[in-house]
Formats: sequence, C-alpha cells, structure tokens
Amino acid sequence: MPHIALPAGFPGVRSLFMYSPVTAKPLNDLVQTLLHDPNTSTLTPGERELIATYTSSLNECKYCANTHGAIAKYQLGGDADVVKAVMVDPAAAEITPKLKALMNIAAKVQQSGRNVNSRDIAAAREEGATDNEIHDAVLIAATFCMFNRYVDGLATWAPDDPAVYDAIGKQRASEGYLTQPFKVAQTQQ
Amino acid sequence: MPHIALPAGFPGVRSLFMYSPVTAKPLNDLVQTLLHDPNTSTLTPGERELIATYTSSLNECKYCANTHGAIAKYQLGGDADVVKAVMVDPAAAEITPKLKALMNIAAKVQQSGRNVNSRDIAAAREEGATDNEIHDAVLIAATFCMFNRYVDGLATWAPDDPAVYDAIGKQRASEGYLTQPFKVAQTQQ
Repeated sequence: MPHIALPAGFPGVRSLFMYSPVTAKPLNDLVQTLLHDPNTSTLTPGERELIATYTSSLNECKYCANTHGAIAKYQLGGDADVVKAVMVDPAAAEITPKLKALMNIAAKVQQSGRNVNSRDIAAAREEGATDNEIHDAVLIAATFCMFNRYVDGLATWAPDDPAVYDAIGKQRASEGYLTQPFKVAQTQQ
Repeated sequence: MPHIALPAGFPGVRSLFMYSPVTAKPLNDLVQTLLHDPNTSTLTPGERELIATYTSSLNECKYCANTHGAIAKYQLGGDADVVKAVMVDPAAAEITPKLKALMNIAAKVQQSGRNVNSRDIAAAREEGATDNEIHDAVLIAATFCMFNRYVDGLATWAPDDPAVYDAIGKQRASEGYLTQPFKVAQTQQ
C-alpha cells in the first residue's frame, strides 16, 4: 500500500503524476526530451530506454525496470531477449561495444557520480562515444536514480501482471511521455 | 577537469545547463517548483533547501551541498549555523521535529527508495507532516540523488572559494532558478 493517499488505478510514477501535476509537468518534459525525442540525442530511443531499464534494474525498482524494459522492447522492434540480457549483464548482451561502455558508466553513476573515472570515459570514447552521448548516458542514469527513489520511496503500486507493463510499453514507445496515463482495471489491483 | 568539454566560467550544474539547454529547461522548471515557488508546498523554501542540502551532503556532492547550503542560509534569513548543523546531524540541529522526521525519510531515500518504511512515515505524521509534505520530502531527496550524480558523474567544476557559493546562494534565494547563471571570473578557476 502506498505511503500516501494516491489515486487508485494508476501504477508507479503515473499515480504520483496524478497526485502532483505541478511536478509531473517538468518530469514528463524531462523524459520526453531525454528518452523519446529522436532529435535530442544521437543515441536511439531504444538505446536510451535500455540505459533507463538497466539503471532501474540495478536499483531494484520493479515498476520502472518492467515499464522501461517494455518500452525498450517496442523501441527495439520487439526484441525482448536483448532487454532481458541487458538486465542480467550488459557486457554479455547483444548490444554495440559503445552501448556496453555507456552501460558501464551508467552502473558507476547508479552507485555514485563520484565513481565515474577517466578510464571509464576513455573506454567509451574508444568505442566511438561522443561527448553528447556520454552526457546523455550520465543524465539518463542519474534521472532514473531519481525516478526509482520517487516511485519506491512512496511505495507506489507495482503490478505483478506482465501484460500491464507490456500495454504501458506499447503506449509510451509510440506516443511518448506527454499523453494521458494508462489506467489499469481496478480488479487487477 | 570535466569529463566532457563544458563551457568555461560556469561551475557545477550551471555548466551542464549551458551545455545542454534542452534538458536544462525541464530541470530548472522542476527545481523552481519543488524548491522555490512559495505556493507549491506547505514546507517553506528554507526547509526545502535544507532537505536538498542534506541529501547532497550525504552524497558528498561538494558543488550541490555548498550551493544549496548557501541558498538555504539566505532563505532562512542568514542562519548559517542551522545549515551547518543539518549537514552534520539533522536530529541534533535546531529545526522542527517535523523537519527532523522528514530528514530521516530523506536519508532513507538517499540510500534507496525501498528503505523507507511505514514506521518512518508514521513518525513524520506524528510530528504533523501531511501527505503533501511527505511527498515533497521524498521527491526533493530523489531529485538531488539525480543532480548530485549528474554534477559529479561528469566531473564538473566545484569551486573552492566559499564566496562563490555565497554569491550563487544570494542570487538563487532571491531570483529563483529561472534566471541567467552566475558566471565566475576565469581567474578563479
């Protein structure tokens, strides 16, 4: 049960966005720009969603890891296997060497920003990562260290049914983050 | 030296805002609403800045802890002692019992959202904290777990001169977060 009185029928961060529209606006604007907009990053939306998924997985945030995992799957043309593999170990997943190096940086950021060192950055550059891509990877990982804490710090509802995450993933991958939230039937709660 | 090529003369997150205006916009909108706007929270701007300062201190983020400590000081009418005391131990600082209970929640969030339990929430309620105030404390702590990682994950410049932080603090406390950044003389870098 959530720690505060949140609107029923909306899982995870969506219940918080309904509860607090004044902070929902900049938070949705942030993820729209950071994850979804094809013109704001040279990383693909699928790559950016994988970084969000991996960070959320490291923070053991069930709602965010499952939601962004499902969005990543749809952004990657339905490839659920690569999403699962990234959550286990990005170094062994079928992703580009550049994305592996950025995942290493994301894992450092998840622990502490102070853990990122010049060798991590050099390794990413060797695989072709640009300043913008290093910037985006750090900010995505940092942003999900926020969302994961917001979602779990208030004990929001994380559905058990994989179909709920799949439906959210399909919606967000096609519509982005600025449309109305997916409402789950009350009977599923 | 920063991990990526950032504009000279701007410290900490301000150099990142200059580097990436597209993400700066929602991030500045977020802190304006969350920390500065007097109408969006029943916590005072000073109390909210103290939560940001304490979280940044726990994350050992020199730039954010010093900047928000200075903003908190100006928001609290110049009381530097209470800011220093909160950074050492909020339970022993001269702040309200309600704010102490919210600081305890912030410290849990800093570790992991999953660490906040029903006893932490009940203790805050016993001291008069409302749902909105618990929400705001969790989101402020979560937000600074993001900013601290963004600032340190890219190794931004954190000035040593306390006068720099004091000038930023004075500016942000009076102007909020949506005005142009404070530029430090190049010679101070």
